Amino acid sequence: MTVTESVATTIRSIRAQVAALHAELPRNGLVVWTAGNVSARVPGADLLVIKPSGVSYDEITADNMVVTDLDANLVDGEMAPSSDTAAHAYVYKHMPHVNGVVHTHSTYATAWSARAEPIPCVLTMIADEFGGEIPVGPFALIGDDSIGQGIVTTLSGHRSPAVLMRNHGVFTIGASARAAVKAAVMCEDVARTVHIARQLGTPLPIAQNDVDSLYARYQNVYGQA
Amino acid sequence: MTVTESVATTIRSIRAQVAALHAELPRNGLVVWTAGNVSARVPGADLLVIKPSGVSYDEITADNMVVTDLDANLVDGEMAPSSDTAAHAYVYKHMPHVNGVVHTHSTYATAWSARAEPIPCVLTMIADEFGGEIPVGPFALIGDDSIGQGIVTTLSGHRSPAVLMRNHGVFTIGASARAAVKAAVMCEDVARTVHIARQLGTPLPIAQNDVDSLYARYQNVYGQA
Amino acid sequence: MTVTESVATTIRSIRAQVAALHAELPRNGLVVWTAGNVSARVPGADLLVIKPSGVSYDEITADNMVVTDLDANLVDGEMAPSSDTAAHAYVYKHMPHVNGVVHTHSTYATAWSARAEPIPCVLTMIADEFGGEIPVGPFALIGDDSIGQGIVTTLSGHRSPAVLMRNHGVFTIGASARAAVKAAVMCEDVARTVHIARQLGTPLPIAQNDVDSLYARYQNVYGQA
Amino acid sequence: MTVTESVATTIRSIRAQVAALHAELPRNGLVVWTAGNVSARVPGADLLVIKPSGVSYDEITADNMVVTDLDANLVDGEMAPSSDTAAHAYVYKHMPHVNGVVHTHSTYATAWSARAEPIPCVLTMIADEFGGEIPVGPFALIGDDSIGQGIVTTLSGHRSPAVLMRNHGVFTIGASARAAVKAAVMCEDVARTVHIARQLGTPLPIAQNDVDSLYARYQNVYGQA
Repeated sequence: MTVTESVATTIRSIRAQVAALHAELPRNGLVVWTAGNVSARVPGADLLVIKPSGVSYDEITADNMVVTDLDANLVDGEMAPSSDTAAHAYVYKHMPHVNGVVHTHSTYATAWSARAEPIPCVLTMIADEFGGEIPVGPFALIGDDSIGQGIVTTLSGHRSPAVLMRNHGVFTIGASARAAVKAAVMCEDVARTVHIARQLGTPLPIAQNDVDSLYARYQNVYGQA
Repeated sequence: MTVTESVATTIRSIRAQVAALHAELPRNGLVVWTAGNVSARVPGADLLVIKPSGVSYDEITADNMVVTDLDANLVDGEMAPSSDTAAHAYVYKHMPHVNGVVHTHSTYATAWSARAEPIPCVLTMIADEFGGEIPVGPFALIGDDSIGQGIVTTLSGHRSPAVLMRNHGVFTIGASARAAVKAAVMCEDVARTVHIARQLGTPLPIAQNDVDSLYARYQNVYGQA
Repeated sequence: MTVTESVATTIRSIRAQVAALHAELPRNGLVVWTAGNVSARVPGADLLVIKPSGVSYDEITADNMVVTDLDANLVDGEMAPSSDTAAHAYVYKHMPHVNGVVHTHSTYATAWSARAEPIPCVLTMIADEFGGEIPVGPFALIGDDSIGQGIVTTLSGHRSPAVLMRNHGVFTIGASARAAVKAAVMCEDVARTVHIARQLGTPLPIAQNDVDSLYARYQNVYGQA
Repeated sequence: MTVTESVATTIRSIRAQVAALHAELPRNGLVVWTAGNVSARVPGADLLVIKPSGVSYDEITADNMVVTDLDANLVDGEMAPSSDTAAHAYVYKHMPHVNGVVHTHSTYATAWSARAEPIPCVLTMIADEFGGEIPVGPFALIGDDSIGQGIVTTLSGHRSPAVLMRNHGVFTIGASARAAVKAAVMCEDVARTVHIARQLGTPLPIAQNDVDSLYARYQNVYGQA
C-alpha cells in the first residue's frame, strides 16, 4: 500500500490524538495495567491507528502507536498491534459513520456484561448519551473478527454508542475517537450508579417520551455550536 | 443591560471564584467528563456566573465562565452557558438568601435519587450539615425552569441545602458558592456511607432532639468566627 | 500558664508533626472537606496540639495548629480549636499511655458504627493490629466530654486502638500520633474488606489462639527494632 | 556466604527493580500503609531481594531493600526483612520456575479469601491471565514457612499465578517480579468485577474449551514478541 504525503501528515496527527486519548482511560479509572485500547480511523484512507499489544500506559507515545488496514494487517509501526485490532477494523469497515472505537474492561460495565444484563435507562444521563438502555452483545473469542461482528450487529440501528460484550467488557463507538472515549467514561459512570441504585431497591423508570426529549436535546443543543 | 464599572469589577472576581470552585468537583470525585456545574450570584446585580456547556474541567478558566441574567439570557461571555442555567437562575430569582448553586450527578446521591428515596438522618454528619433527611425533588426535563421549580419547592422551608432530583442527580444551595460546593461534597459522602450501612442491615435512628442539638451547634459554633 | 523554653521547643516540633500527619487523612481517603482531625500530647506538659475547627486540609500548617490544655482551653494559637478537642483532651487526661488521637468519619467504619455493629476479627490484619474485634462506643453529642468518656470506657482494657462511635465515626489512639493515624488507616481498610466479604456470605472465623499468636507477633516482632 | 563480584552486580540491579516495582502496589490501590511486599530471586544464586519489615512505601529505595538466602536468613542489608520473607523463600526453593513473588491484602481478593471462596472464571480476563478459577489456600500463621507451604501446594499444577490465602490476602508468582505484580493487579481487578457482578445475580459461565482457547492465545500471542 502506498501512503501519500497528505495521508502521512494525517497519520502523524491521528497518532498524536490516539496516544493522548489513551491517557483518559487510566485517568478515568477504566483500565488496569495494559488492558484497554483506543483507535481512530484515518480520514481519506482505509486505515486505522491503534495501541500496540501489551504496552503499559506509561510508555504510550505518538511514535509507538501502530497503523493497520481495515483487515487488521500492520501497515506502519514497530510493534505488534493490539490483539483487539480485528474487532476495531471490522467496525470501521462496516460502520462508515464511525471514526473512533474504544475498548475497556471497566469494572461496573463489565459486571453487567458478565450477567448479560443490559443497563436500563433510569437516569437522565443515560437518556442523554445513550438514548435508551445500553445493550448486551454476544460472547465471542478474542483475536479474529467475531467481536467486531457482535459489536456491529448489536449497535446497528441502536442509539447507544456502547455495547456490553458478554463476559468480556465494553466497546464504544463515536463520530470521533474523543466521542468514543466520552461514551466509555459515561458508560462506566452510569453502570456504577444504576448498580448502586439497584442494590437497595428498584430505580424508577423514565417515560419513553421523556427519554426521547432528553436524547434529542442532548444530541442537538448540549455543548458549544 | 448596562454593566457599571463596579459591577464589572465584581464580575471579574466572581468569575475567578466560580472557575476555581469547579476544580473541587473532579477533585472530590463528584463528576465525570463535562457533567456538573457551579454558579454564583453577582452581588448587587440580577446576574449569575456559570460554567459554559459541555466544556472539560481541564479547560475551565475565569475568562471562559459566562454571565447570564436571572432569566438565563447570556449577558457576557463567548460560549453558550450550561444547559442547567435556567435551573440555577430560577433558584436565585426565588431564593434571595442563596448566592451559590451546584449541580452534580455524584454516584451515591444519584443512586438514591433513582429510587426517589430520601437519605435518612442516621449520622451526626447529616444532622450537622443537613439538619435532617436529604429530600427528593420531582422528575423534571432539562433545559427550561422545571428543575428550578422542583428545587425551590422542595427546599423552601427545609433545613437541607441539598435536594436529590428524581432519576437525575443533586442540586445544592448555599449562602456562598463555596458553601454550596461543601454541601455537594458532604451530600455524596453521607449518601455513600448510609448506602453502605444499609447494605448489611438497618442504621440506628438518631433522636430528633439530638438532631436539633447537633444542627444548632454545627451551624453556630463550628469553624472560625 | 507559663510555658517554659523547653516546652516551647517541644511544642514547635509537635505542631510540625501534627500538621504533617493531617496530610495522611485525605491521602488515605479517610476524610472529606474539613472533617477529621489529629492531635498529639505535648510530652512533659498537660497540653495537646490539634487542628483548628473548620479549616481545609489545603490550609493546614505547623503555625495554625492550636495548643490547648487537657480541659480543652486554648493556650496558644490564633484560631478556635477543633470542635472535637474536648474528646481528645478527655482521652489524654484518662489514658496516660496515649500520646496521639485521631478522629475520622471514614466511610466503611462509619457504616458499621451506624448499625452499632463491631467489626469481627476475620482477617489476619485485624488480629495483627486490633487483637480482636473493633468495638462500638455509645452515641454521644459533639462538643463536651461525652465522646471522650465513651472512648475511654470502651477502649479501657481492650486491645483495639480503634472505637466505632455510634452513628458518628471512628476514634483511634496510639503511643504516638503516627500510630493513631496508622490505626485509623487500617481500621477503614479492614472495615471495607469485611463489609465486602459479608456482602456475599459469611467470613470464616479465626480461632482465638491464632488471633492471640498473630497479635503477639505483630506487636513484638513486626517492623524494625 | 561469599558473594562474587558478578552476583554483587546482579544484586544491585535486582534491588533497583524490586524497589521500583513496590511503587506499583500503592499506585494500583493494592496496599495501605506498610502492608504488602514484592520480592525477586537473584539469578545465579540462592538469594532473594525483598522489602524490609514495616517500612513505608514513601521510604523504599534500592539501598534499603534486603537480601536473604532461601531459608530467609539476612545476607545483606541494614534492616530486618519483611515478616513474610519465609513464605517468599519457601516458594523460590520449591518452585524453580518462579522468579518473582508478590503479597498484598488487596480489598476484594481478600474478601473472597475471608469466605474461602475461589473466584470463578466468568470473565475473558480471568481466562486470559489465570486460565481458570483463582484458588483458595489454607489458613496459616505468619512468620514461619506455613504460608509458603500453602502457596506451593495450592499453585503446583495449577494455571493460576495467584492464590487467595484464607482470612489473609493474596500471593502471586511469576517468571519475573514484574509478572507477579501484574498478576496481583489483575487478581484484584477481577476479584472486584466478579464480586460486583454477583451482587445482583449470577454471572454466566464460560465454556471450558473457550477458557482454554483464551488462555492459550493470551499466554502465547498477546503482547510483543
